[in-house]
Amino acid sequence: MLQYSQFSINGSLWISKGNELFIGPAQFRLIKQVINDGSILAASQNLHISYQQAWNIVDKMNRLSPLPLVTRYKGGNDGGGCRIDNFGMKVFHQFEENEERLNKLIDEINLNFNLCSF
Amino acid sequence: MLQYSQFSINGSLWISKGNELFIGPAQFRLIKQVINDGSILAASQNLHISYQQAWNIVDKMNRLSPLPLVTRYKGGNDGGGCRIDNFGMKVFHQFEENEERLNKLIDEINLNFNLCSF
Repeated sequence: MLQYSQFSINGSLWISKGNELFIGPAQFRLIKQVINDGSILAASQNLHISYQQAWNIVDKMNRLSPLPLVTRYKGGNDGGGCRIDNFGMKVFHQFEENEERLNKLIDEINLNFNLCSF
Repeated sequence: MLQYSQFSINGSLWISKGNELFIGPAQFRLIKQVINDGSILAASQNLHISYQQAWNIVDKMNRLSPLPLVTRYKGGNDGGGCRIDNFGMKVFHQFEENEERLNKLIDEINLNFNLCSF
């Protein structure tokens, strides 16, 4: 019997600055985790990547961004951490919304996608 | 002046078989070129990749596919070449149609995507 059911359509979105990747799915996941955890260290641990990798991703995004996305702060009750700036939150929500639109399209395509019917 | 205009949304689609890539944009471009040129050699030259790279892509697709996608034939007026099988043509057209739907969504998103308005 031919195995068709293992086939599926997938997709992804990313924001480019010229030819450079600004924010793609990996950057988006990291921002989401930093929003949740309030620090790059905790976010990197929860995503199972090294702190250095996480920091490099944040640093590259910040350098490409016209306004700061993520800033570190010191002090406060928790001794400091990371904050997603207003601009970063707007970019994050825009990305999230667009990814939802993409996922809706992918779901629609997968509903009608069946190699078996060819 | 802040430079926002260099930012754009991009996207891609691919067909997976389980966790493996079956057909993505690179595979799609190669099939399209083989349809146009009738041979993997000519297609690889027009896409500026090596024959070996092109053949590896075709070979992997064929191995993952439940039915042949691309077959080589010998003889005939042109001394042989490559043919996209019926199943391959159906997969190709399905991919093309879905990519058009994705591109329409990306165009819509880009129309309203302006980091400047944040």
